[in-house]
Amino acid sequence: MKSYSIGIDIGGTNTGFGLVDEKGNIISTTSIFTKDFDVVEAYLDEIVNHIILLIERCEDKSLIKGVGIGAPNGNYYHGTIEHAPNLKFSGIIPVKEYIETKLKGKGYDLKVTLTNDANAAAIGEMIYGGAKGIKNFIMITLGTGVGSGIVVDGKVVYGADGFAGEVGHTIVQPEGRMCGCGRKGCVETYSSVTGLRKTALDLIKNTKTKSSLREISQENIGGKAIYNAAKNGDKLALKCFEITAKMLAIGMANAVAVTSPEKIFIFGGLTKAGDLLMIPLKKYFEESLFVVFQNKIELEISNLDENNAAILGAAALTY
Amino acid sequence: MKSYSIGIDIGGTNTGFGLVDEKGNIISTTSIFTKDFDVVEAYLDEIVNHIILLIERCEDKSLIKGVGIGAPNGNYYHGTIEHAPNLKFSGIIPVKEYIETKLKGKGYDLKVTLTNDANAAAIGEMIYGGAKGIKNFIMITLGTGVGSGIVVDGKVVYGADGFAGEVGHTIVQPEGRMCGCGRKGCVETYSSVTGLRKTALDLIKNTKTKSSLREISQENIGGKAIYNAAKNGDKLALKCFEITAKMLAIGMANAVAVTSPEKIFIFGGLTKAGDLLMIPLKKYFEESLFVVFQNKIELEISNLDENNAAILGAAALTY
Repeated sequence: MKSYSIGIDIGGTNTGFGLVDEKGNIISTTSIFTKDFDVVEAYLDEIVNHIILLIERCEDKSLIKGVGIGAPNGNYYHGTIEHAPNLKFSGIIPVKEYIETKLKGKGYDLKVTLTNDANAAAIGEMIYGGAKGIKNFIMITLGTGVGSGIVVDGKVVYGADGFAGEVGHTIVQPEGRMCGCGRKGCVETYSSVTGLRKTALDLIKNTKTKSSLREISQENIGGKAIYNAAKNGDKLALKCFEITAKMLAIGMANAVAVTSPEKIFIFGGLTKAGDLLMIPLKKYFEESLFVVFQNKIELEISNLDENNAAILGAAALTY
Repeated sequence: MKSYSIGIDIGGTNTGFGLVDEKGNIISTTSIFTKDFDVVEAYLDEIVNHIILLIERCEDKSLIKGVGIGAPNGNYYHGTIEHAPNLKFSGIIPVKEYIETKLKGKGYDLKVTLTNDANAAAIGEMIYGGAKGIKNFIMITLGTGVGSGIVVDGKVVYGADGFAGEVGHTIVQPEGRMCGCGRKGCVETYSSVTGLRKTALDLIKNTKTKSSLREISQENIGGKAIYNAAKNGDKLALKCFEITAKMLAIGMANAVAVTSPEKIFIFGGLTKAGDLLMIPLKKYFEESLFVVFQNKIELEISNLDENNAAILGAAALTY
């Protein structure tokens, strides 16, 4: 049946809004600059305004199922954003409650559902993407950080406190590299875009391996430069992808040992590296798997369009 | 309401049977030596005979809910034991199907449910033990190996293939000690009773630390000797518990990041070490947890009686 959802992707820089139909077509979009707001209430009020903008653009308001929000450190149970390091607003923000109340005050009775970005991406994959009909899978999002959404028996695992699914913050090298979270050796500190860059800087400093990356300035060494170098067969750059893949592979294999998924979907900026990432990832993943899981779990790059996935995932929360 | 279950604990040496009431009281028991059987059919036939023995001992056969079996490498979906390394019978054994058919042939129409020992222990904890009413928890079993059962939203996670919950075979030290499973650095290779012993032998060989353990023969160094030495303040023995605890702590913290449980129950022989294990375990566990999970997950020694837990867990499978 025809229906619509409003999906909102809250990021540190931008906040994107989309009116999405039941097939995952984005009918209309709008956005605001998160960074422009210093006061959280002003920011949330502007979100409400943009939700109403999209409601008004819908052909039939009565077909709108609700509002879904994907946000950093979003808590599904409480509908809050809690201590998100890359947002200006500190503490615990009661996003769901605030927005529902304001919408109601303006005559719109819509349920707001909120979770973190990676859980939203997992639900997006399940409702609109390659995970349709798959009951047990893991979604890994590779961006500035490493996020994950765990699906068991067709449902996202939120756990006791709503924060389940932090594969990026599992430890795979106890005496390893310092992570932004204050511990050592988390997957994220190696396998995010930031981690890939750290690996390059580390190899440039601590090895003698020849590399075209030595000829560019430190601040220009990022995912794209490393990718281009690796494409040209640069050994140091290829080694960066090997390390990124190996650490992620161990983290994924450990998560497999916990929930035994049928498939793992990989999503986000780093997947643009294609085989440079996926070939070593598949190799190290099989090597790292406990024997009963070997040769039966598919790794697949998400087929959600990266530009729209966050909004689609958020919209899918209304299902 | 009054009801009974038959719980069966299949081990490499013994197979224990118990008739259990709805409160977890074991009404009657029997057992056979697994090792006495070379042919799997003869073994399964003897299991059937002992099930019938317990049925006949029940005050009212119509109150028996079913038969639950906890077994190494037990697969819940297929009702099979698959490639169990410590059983004489190799390959895939269709335990559930065989026993149900034989029972039916003898006029007993009972459902047989099978899973691995650690999942059975988790269900036992949930039905008869300290996890009553807890929706999200992890059960860790520390014996010859390290097993685990993962409970999410009140249900054991079996995953896509029925083998979920292998925290013992998550990798916590990629370049670490060889594990029996063929990979390096699994939790089990450090934090099982066998692992504790390996650590002692390793420290005796590769350090100069004085220790009373140096005065006993290698074959006599086991959990008990290490425990006794540690109790007397022996530094090397204390270090063994530190390492056991640290590796287990990382594995548990990584599992927490996946499913976010409210509590972790620790079960099995090693828990007899009490504070020698639990104090360093709690310390390293908190240190290894991602910040959002710190100071909110309780670690608790299982309050299931160790001698009966396997049978109780198996019986609980019928619920």
